[in-house]
Amino acid sequence: MFSEQDKDALYRIIHARRDIRTFLTTPIPEEIVKHLLEAAHHGPSVGYMQPWSFILVTKDTIKERLAWAADKERRALAIHYEDDRQDQFLGLKIEGIKQAPLTICVTCDPTRGGSHVLGRNSIPETDVLSTACAIQNMWLAACAEGLALGWVSFYKKADIRNILGIPPHIDPVALLSIGYTDHYPSKPILETANWEKRRSLDDLVFHETWGGKV
Amino acid sequence: MFSEQDKDALYRIIHARRDIRTFLTTPIPEEIVKHLLEAAHHGPSVGYMQPWSFILVTKDTIKERLAWAADKERRALAIHYEDDRQDQFLGLKIEGIKQAPLTICVTCDPTRGGSHVLGRNSIPETDVLSTACAIQNMWLAACAEGLALGWVSFYKKADIRNILGIPPHIDPVALLSIGYTDHYPSKPILETANWEKRRSLDDLVFHETWGGKV
Repeated sequence: MFSEQDKDALYRIIHARRDIRTFLTTPIPEEIVKHLLEAAHHGPSVGYMQPWSFILVTKDTIKERLAWAADKERRALAIHYEDDRQDQFLGLKIEGIKQAPLTICVTCDPTRGGSHVLGRNSIPETDVLSTACAIQNMWLAACAEGLALGWVSFYKKADIRNILGIPPHIDPVALLSIGYTDHYPSKPILETANWEKRRSLDDLVFHETWGGKV
Repeated sequence: MFSEQDKDALYRIIHARRDIRTFLTTPIPEEIVKHLLEAAHHGPSVGYMQPWSFILVTKDTIKERLAWAADKERRALAIHYEDDRQDQFLGLKIEGIKQAPLTICVTCDPTRGGSHVLGRNSIPETDVLSTACAIQNMWLAACAEGLALGWVSFYKKADIRNILGIPPHIDPVALLSIGYTDHYPSKPILETANWEKRRSLDDLVFHETWGGKV
């Protein structure tokens, strides 16, 4: 069904995908945004509930309020780090929210699909897991389209709900900054910044039971 | 960076990927399993914590116990459905766990990376969201490799921890059955079974704020 070239393309995209924090202001063609949204919407979802919605933010005034919420949270978190680690932490960029021409807030509606969603009955968080799979589809699509994407995860959900008018029962799962960039690094920025290294896959694989080695 | 062919391959894989419940017993070459694991391990993770581990189950005795746990949960859930919906529900296959030559239990370790993982400080569930992104990478890789994958989400986590010897603080996020199949449907099985339809993307997209339309 898929050729060697197809497989190779997928693996190259998966391996090249990075979390990016600096963007050019160049606008993104509408057609390409549509491709990203279609990719997300073709993610898997437990009980086929498709719990996601996408709020496309392009207005500067709203992006500034989102950046304010993220910066506030960053300053609060910085207090938990000490010395060098704090400097490193504060050096991480969140200005991306203001730079990027598009921010997408991806939400999850836990009530979608009714009271008894297949699978969600057993494991309630399957709805946000499904939403994360949709985001990963979008991220790979962005990478393939030559677009940088940064998943911002410093914020208080209440702030994001207030800024974007999101109802209390809807979960703002992610803020994604999207745009073109003049620097798409080959390594994760947290690896280059000596924050963390890639773990050895062998250490993460077990056989038959937890801790089992061949 | 990526060609039109590369993009086209990614979109075809994203659109073709299905959740599959029937498998052939044909074994999967070790090299291909490695590709799937590498794809997962190149998923994004908050603060680069890489919270995932992978338990590869191939022994029949263990697969039978996993299938028992899933079937027990299915029978418990069936009580919440009535009449036709109950028949439909009980008709959904979970024998896949026994048929498939490989089941991978993907886990999430919320303690990995230390006490203060970037981003996880603000949104604790970012660790399982990262794990879901890794699973989506693996799922797309499986689809590209001509392999069927089914994400089983009927189980009590305590049962899976007991069967696989998983420590209490580790979250067994997913059980994935993987194998070849003689039927890879073009539509989601829950759509064909008239359980649920694909939603219109237009209804899921808002502009600037929740509910905003252009």
